[in-house]
Amino acid sequence: MIVSGLLTSVSINFALCSIFFILYSVLRKQPGNYKVYAPRLLAEGRAERPSRFKIFRLLPTAGWIWNAWQPSEDDLLAYSGLDAVVFMRIIIFSLKVFSIAGFIGIFVLIPVNCSGNQLQNIDLINISNNSLEIFSISNVNNGSDSLWIHVGAVYLLTIIVCYLLFTEYRYIASKRIDYFCSLEPQPNQFTILVSNIPVPKGSTVGQSVEKFFTENHPNTYLSHVVVHRKSKMWTVTNAAKKIYRRIMNSIKSANEPQFMHYGHLEANVKKDHSREEVRAAFVSFKSRYGAAVAVHMLQANNPTQWLTEPAPEPQDVYWPFFSSTFMGRWISRLVVIVGCMLLTIVFLIPVFIVQGLTNLAQLETYFPFLQGILTMSIVSQVITGYLPNLILQVSLKIVPPIMKLLSSAQGYISISEIERSATHKVIWFTVWNVFFANVLSASAFSLIFIFLEFKDIPSKLAVSVPAQASFFIAYVMTLGWTSTSSELFRVVPFIASLITKPFVKNPDDFTVPSFPYHQDIPKILFFGLLGFTYFFLAPLIIPFLLGYFSLAYIIYRNQLLNVYAPKYESGGKFWPVVHDSTIFSLVLMQFIAFGIFTLKKLPHSTSATLPLPILTLLFNEYCRKRFLPIFMAYSTETLLKKDREDRNLPGMARFLGQLDVVYYDPALVPLTYSRSQDALHEPLIPTQLRR
Amino acid sequence: MIVSGLLTSVSINFALCSIFFILYSVLRKQPGNYKVYAPRLLAEGRAERPSRFKIFRLLPTAGWIWNAWQPSEDDLLAYSGLDAVVFMRIIIFSLKVFSIAGFIGIFVLIPVNCSGNQLQNIDLINISNNSLEIFSISNVNNGSDSLWIHVGAVYLLTIIVCYLLFTEYRYIASKRIDYFCSLEPQPNQFTILVSNIPVPKGSTVGQSVEKFFTENHPNTYLSHVVVHRKSKMWTVTNAAKKIYRRIMNSIKSANEPQFMHYGHLEANVKKDHSREEVRAAFVSFKSRYGAAVAVHMLQANNPTQWLTEPAPEPQDVYWPFFSSTFMGRWISRLVVIVGCMLLTIVFLIPVFIVQGLTNLAQLETYFPFLQGILTMSIVSQVITGYLPNLILQVSLKIVPPIMKLLSSAQGYISISEIERSATHKVIWFTVWNVFFANVLSASAFSLIFIFLEFKDIPSKLAVSVPAQASFFIAYVMTLGWTSTSSELFRVVPFIASLITKPFVKNPDDFTVPSFPYHQDIPKILFFGLLGFTYFFLAPLIIPFLLGYFSLAYIIYRNQLLNVYAPKYESGGKFWPVVHDSTIFSLVLMQFIAFGIFTLKKLPHSTSATLPLPILTLLFNEYCRKRFLPIFMAYSTETLLKKDREDRNLPGMARFLGQLDVVYYDPALVPLTYSRSQDALHEPLIPTQLRR
Repeated sequence: MIVSGLLTSVSINFALCSIFFILYSVLRKQPGNYKVYAPRLLAEGRAERPSRFKIFRLLPTAGWIWNAWQPSEDDLLAYSGLDAVVFMRIIIFSLKVFSIAGFIGIFVLIPVNCSGNQLQNIDLINISNNSLEIFSISNVNNGSDSLWIHVGAVYLLTIIVCYLLFTEYRYIASKRIDYFCSLEPQPNQFTILVSNIPVPKGSTVGQSVEKFFTENHPNTYLSHVVVHRKSKMWTVTNAAKKIYRRIMNSIKSANEPQFMHYGHLEANVKKDHSREEVRAAFVSFKSRYGAAVAVHMLQANNPTQWLTEPAPEPQDVYWPFFSSTFMGRWISRLVVIVGCMLLTIVFLIPVFIVQGLTNLAQLETYFPFLQGILTMSIVSQVITGYLPNLILQVSLKIVPPIMKLLSSAQGYISISEIERSATHKVIWFTVWNVFFANVLSASAFSLIFIFLEFKDIPSKLAVSVPAQASFFIAYVMTLGWTSTSSELFRVVPFIASLITKPFVKNPDDFTVPSFPYHQDIPKILFFGLLGFTYFFLAPLIIPFLLGYFSLAYIIYRNQLLNVYAPKYESGGKFWPVVHDSTIFSLVLMQFIAFGIFTLKKLPHSTSATLPLPILTLLFNEYCRKRFLPIFMAYSTETLLKKDREDRNLPGMARFLGQLDVVYYDPALVPLTYSRSQDALHEPLIPTQLRR
Repeated sequence: MIVSGLLTSVSINFALCSIFFILYSVLRKQPGNYKVYAPRLLAEGRAERPSRFKIFRLLPTAGWIWNAWQPSEDDLLAYSGLDAVVFMRIIIFSLKVFSIAGFIGIFVLIPVNCSGNQLQNIDLINISNNSLEIFSISNVNNGSDSLWIHVGAVYLLTIIVCYLLFTEYRYIASKRIDYFCSLEPQPNQFTILVSNIPVPKGSTVGQSVEKFFTENHPNTYLSHVVVHRKSKMWTVTNAAKKIYRRIMNSIKSANEPQFMHYGHLEANVKKDHSREEVRAAFVSFKSRYGAAVAVHMLQANNPTQWLTEPAPEPQDVYWPFFSSTFMGRWISRLVVIVGCMLLTIVFLIPVFIVQGLTNLAQLETYFPFLQGILTMSIVSQVITGYLPNLILQVSLKIVPPIMKLLSSAQGYISISEIERSATHKVIWFTVWNVFFANVLSASAFSLIFIFLEFKDIPSKLAVSVPAQASFFIAYVMTLGWTSTSSELFRVVPFIASLITKPFVKNPDDFTVPSFPYHQDIPKILFFGLLGFTYFFLAPLIIPFLLGYFSLAYIIYRNQLLNVYAPKYESGGKFWPVVHDSTIFSLVLMQFIAFGIFTLKKLPHSTSATLPLPILTLLFNEYCRKRFLPIFMAYSTETLLKKDREDRNLPGMARFLGQLDVVYYDPALVPLTYSRSQDALHEPLIPTQLRR
């Protein structure tokens, strides 16, 4: 990419961001848009009353920034739960790391890079096309002693990041325990999910559960609910009816009240639906400790039977795909892995297009008739600077929902687990398809072969990564700045609300969305990966990243306070994902460092850089032992402390008595079925005991 | 290796085996040798009374074979425990597998191989040197359809092995549970080992344990014993004194009674020894279930504190190296890994010598003065046929003790765990250094680079593995036949008893050895690996293997009944190791098959062979889920059943009362210290409750 292309990209993105900000600050004040920009406040009856000064409502103001900035972490914790806090900690952690990295990069590495003259020695075809490279490590002379400054910088950053990772892990682990201790009794704390229940002939699932648990957990067992699902026959006929309904809807005029219409159809459907018992049950215990013991002990002599796992929160249970057999879950997991691989290969089509666009000469060879247009300066700048990232952005938008779909087919029984698994998938997908595919300019299939020749990887990366610096600077702006600003402006919901406005009869009919962690955590982590890998290669990217993280800090805080309501509370279980992928980024940086210092003919480079990944992985191993168990289970200490505290709670007996009515598939409860989709997430637990 | 070399090896080994058998059958009948050939029977007072017919005692007889053959598996279980049964099952499993493989190989594959004429087409330098190869797959014509018979054989064997593995895993898992249910109460079932105990200021380890467990396990906690070890100061002075003692012993005449002498010195040493508290304790519970719950639950909010693990049997505890801190254990584990790597590199010296010897031409180039001797036919036959394997055999003898030493430095707290870990190490060491180093004729260091270029491995193996067939046939005879026969004859203990006879005053002063699982399991598994990899390449090896397994069956049974007494009972925990390494062998076979069919230009070979390793690994994954948990922990079901059964046992209260005196370092108990080394393994539990 040429410098002017980069500048075009900067200006387009800066303009877009400004437009989004201004539009948001005006539109958010219009009561008609509260459903889009403050659905949570509206639902809780806390939306701002419309200002009396009409003119003020039409002026762009920045007051919302102050509102988003002000709440403390404890306020956020109380309001949006620990997951939201953890999400904000990812951004704060990145800000800390890249402030330091940026300082080192701008004030130490860039002057060193500029003082070299390697690039002037080489017979470059077109130096102006690569003029950004004089700020990068490519300009440092081969074998120069000043490369030791880069080695030092890599060491320094590794130490700082490990220290920050450690303190952060410790902080979040303690927050997790504190949060658990501060909660009122939750049904999921007292309940486990038992699956693959063997049912002897002449017995029912319920009888089998009752017998097993009264026998094996006589002192702690309380009650159980056998899981039911719609019978397969009913599911098939229902699916057919749904398709029919959709077709009819699109033919008929849309004026008929939708709400009533749905209720009417459901009533019809329910006549012929039949519930089917599944070999799974939610089993409740008298204490948290009793439930935890049942989860952690091997229950039966056949380890594929009586499988126990902690129950999700009632509103977090993912009912539609309740595959109950051990083999069923296992096979669907394998199928999903194959699905992910296929998706990776299919996704390479947009990557190829992007690669073609950043390389105009290649495009001209393929499509000679375009030559006339492409020689126009502005067109070529837009094409090389902005278009590739826009295509990537649009394509990447579809990946998180697809990954969530795949995860939900994998047999997880809670939405939180599905989103966590999707987060993993999206991270590795992005790293593979955006980073490696772009850097190595290779197809996924040839990528595999590159990775099979393991020992060549560092040198290959060392050659290709610096060459893509300007592409990723543009990427940070398009997918960082603009995409985050569009998140503030909520483009799609806003347009949707404009279109549907004439058809909506009931003004109270809107949903409060939940935060799409599986979409936004991978995004932030990927920008972190870019920061790490380019930190010592081309430090120019870091100011752009800092801009992104600052924007993200304010915008996501604002959205968490106004827009999103938590759908579940995983108690900070996203942090281990963040920790692992940061370690991956660090090790990737170190491998690239190993490759580039060897390539730059620095003496003793191997012995200088190889200890780094080993030490980093040892540090990671220690953290896994020190902190990860806290995120897997609560300790006996904590559980018993909470159990003792609650023993004399006035509502406790009633709470325990109601545990067997909490876990019901809403699809089988007539009351909730005819209400909006959101009712799926409405817990049935009495309000006085809900947090 | 030339055919005559192989024949020389066969005759030498056959002669050696016969000599060992004859000598054994005579010597075992001499009462003076009972200490060597039947120490266990002697210790239990069940040794055969010397026959009155003196002449009969000097005749070689085969009655012992009948005696070893006769006992049923249940007899062996009752007499030597489940570990011995599992060991014998490995041999039976191998016999089953290789009977089938041998049938396919000899009656199907060898005729097919002989019918080809690939080798006659190639311009071989010396066909007679490779005349064994006409029985191997090398002789099948490239692209020939008869290669599909080999593909079919690989599929068939994979299916049969997987079926046998599955039934065997299921059988041993059920045996394990049955065995647990049949045991009388054992102290280790009621006890856990707690390490990394945090001790608040002004408190002791004991107080800290008492407080924690009365608080967190109020209903099940019974008692505890804090672990003590010799203080470091004392260990140092003691070591100095030991060295002094040894020097003095060798100077002084050996006639002084050793037993008294030792006791005297110990008395001296004990005056200045001081016990030191370690931050670890054996904590006993009122029930097996209580102990199991404490093991499986996370105890404290800091997962590196209050670490719990099941207690070993009292006689199984490895006291000398009781590293109690979390970090200490972890660091020593890392150090041991590095140690293993170094050992692997050092061990290549004998491997190089072996490679030199099998390749005489090379040897002549290096040492031209040897040319005269090497041209002598008999010398060259001995050198190429027998000597290489003898060197390997001697070198391999030292590996298991070294690996055991390394494992014991790794921080395991029981001898059984140390031996299991050593088993792992010896297996991988043998596979790496004997199989890969010999097959690829490469040093360990260049081996690493071969393995980094992952995609070339199958083709490299396909070229080199068949070429080494005759080497490994000789290996089976030397390290299989002869080495196993020498196990029967017990060469080293026999010679040692001859030498020490004049000095031994007390005829009752002898030790009953325990079975060296970490030495013999890897040996059997490695022969299995050879069988799998050569099954379709050069089936000629399989009859030799079957000979080995039959010998091993009778000889090990005999030794288990007469010689070895179990030192511990791990309840069949060796089987998962066997399962995993069999799967490894299968997959290795499949990869070589993939390589060789590609090399042989069989159309569609890739699509025909690649599903095999995938399906095998999936099968393994299923087995891990289905059976492995049984070997990790006993189920709630089983534990509660046993607890209920024992509740009204008459001796139970007394048994529980004595749990706190069972776990004491014998080094700190004056009574046992002045007795023979064997006292270390003498449990202190009352006899009526011992199995």
